[in-house]
Amino acid sequence: MPAPAMNADEIAKLLHEVFPQAFYPGCGLTLERVEYANIRVRRHFHDDYIRPGGTISGPTMMELADFAMYVAVFSAVGPQPLAVTTNLNINFLRKPAQSDLIADARLMKVGKRLAVGEVTIYSEGLPDPVAHVTSTYSIP
Amino acid sequence: MPAPAMNADEIAKLLHEVFPQAFYPGCGLTLERVEYANIRVRRHFHDDYIRPGGTISGPTMMELADFAMYVAVFSAVGPQPLAVTTNLNINFLRKPAQSDLIADARLMKVGKRLAVGEVTIYSEGLPDPVAHVTSTYSIP
Amino acid sequence: MPAPAMNADEIAKLLHEVFPQAFYPGCGLTLERVEYANIRVRRHFHDDYIRPGGTISGPTMMELADFAMYVAVFSAVGPQPLAVTTNLNINFLRKPAQSDLIADARLMKVGKRLAVGEVTIYSEGLPDPVAHVTSTYSIP
Amino acid sequence: MPAPAMNADEIAKLLHEVFPQAFYPGCGLTLERVEYANIRVRRHFHDDYIRPGGTISGPTMMELADFAMYVAVFSAVGPQPLAVTTNLNINFLRKPAQSDLIADARLMKVGKRLAVGEVTIYSEGLPDPVAHVTSTYSIP
Repeated sequence: MPAPAMNADEIAKLLHEVFPQAFYPGCGLTLERVEYANIRVRRHFHDDYIRPGGTISGPTMMELADFAMYVAVFSAVGPQPLAVTTNLNINFLRKPAQSDLIADARLMKVGKRLAVGEVTIYSEGLPDPVAHVTSTYSIP
Repeated sequence: MPAPAMNADEIAKLLHEVFPQAFYPGCGLTLERVEYANIRVRRHFHDDYIRPGGTISGPTMMELADFAMYVAVFSAVGPQPLAVTTNLNINFLRKPAQSDLIADARLMKVGKRLAVGEVTIYSEGLPDPVAHVTSTYSIP
Repeated sequence: MPAPAMNADEIAKLLHEVFPQAFYPGCGLTLERVEYANIRVRRHFHDDYIRPGGTISGPTMMELADFAMYVAVFSAVGPQPLAVTTNLNINFLRKPAQSDLIADARLMKVGKRLAVGEVTIYSEGLPDPVAHVTSTYSIP
Repeated sequence: MPAPAMNADEIAKLLHEVFPQAFYPGCGLTLERVEYANIRVRRHFHDDYIRPGGTISGPTMMELADFAMYVAVFSAVGPQPLAVTTNLNINFLRKPAQSDLIADARLMKVGKRLAVGEVTIYSEGLPDPVAHVTSTYSIP
């Protein structure tokens, strides 16, 4: 496996510069692993994510998955902040716990124009995934 | 076409009660049309939605689509706040303008356990859609 | 709406030349309408399509949807037989009748590199769709 | 991991009984591995699968993925031939070789009413997947 095109610190610095609405001190997102095309992001729990039924809302998980794919793209092709999602498909599998979410993203294809990956989301400490995502990014 | 199971005022009141994190005075979401299985929601523009490239972020559109489906489910089956998304697939079609987003949601199937619909999202005043979503809700 | 880039006869001739495994006299596929980015294909019923439960199999509908998108791409961008599917998402909505299937395909975006469309599939003579598809083609 | 609810011979026998249009001697499908919720199917190469560009057609891969999910459902919940696909999403990743296709299916959720899984499809002997599928089956 090649080395990542950017490491976690470089990606965090880039995100803070180009996307301060999403990534800032206290935003609740931590890059826990950055390998080539294979990354882990943690979303710290916050009451705002709760939806009726006492579970974490779907959009919280979709946003996390999209963010994890964005980081995975950087890990594979370097600083391309204008990369954009063209497709995202999510299956919600289980009711998440009221705890941190862990997103493991892995690119299955890194092409010149498109990157395709999958993201598996877990509630911290529980073995079965709460959601599974596939997504395509277009690289400018 | 049957009458909607709930009208816009009833749905707004329910949302405010059961999901105050998402729907509250000033949240920027307006129910503009509520017919049976066929609704329109407006998301008022806010700077926070901007992503690199000067366009509205993908998660903003995913959240809007998911919310529009939730409202569409209420319009067809009545107050079922524990309805949950099981699948959502989004294609991003064009770069949105920095303006309000309009989401038209339409259910293609209203079953006892599942509702399946599509959501087309527009930038206000522009004819071509910026995103298209299909989604399935599970009804408890 | 612009005129189609190819009419039904031109598309049928092209398909017969380049894809004789799928389109040949007696294959059971008829191009019923070809407008710009908006086409209808009929799949004539055949016993081979039946699956357990007495209904038409999922792959029969997926193949029809993919074919209808291919024809829709030709109607918009002309003879590009090397166009390939990059993504297809199908929701099965209702049990189809043992009768012809009608596929209405409509492109939502016709770009230089990508075309994105939706296909709605009906059992002939019945008002409610049996399946709904969104799909992306890559244009070489 | 529990034992599979049915082994490969039992599933082959069931398929031959209930779905002889798809599974019969000489159909070109072989069940190569049947574990609990985790199976492998081989599709033997045939000229009929070729599409323009000299590659295997998309519907060939969609049919294989749907079949692999069907077998995976049997491996987890036993003989339920009336299980039906409700959603299938496929990303085509690379041009397949003109050789056998290998489909690895794995269920991520086995519920009372729904099973959700992913299928990764390879060209025999090549390390990178040619397609990736997620799919939901409804269990009667």
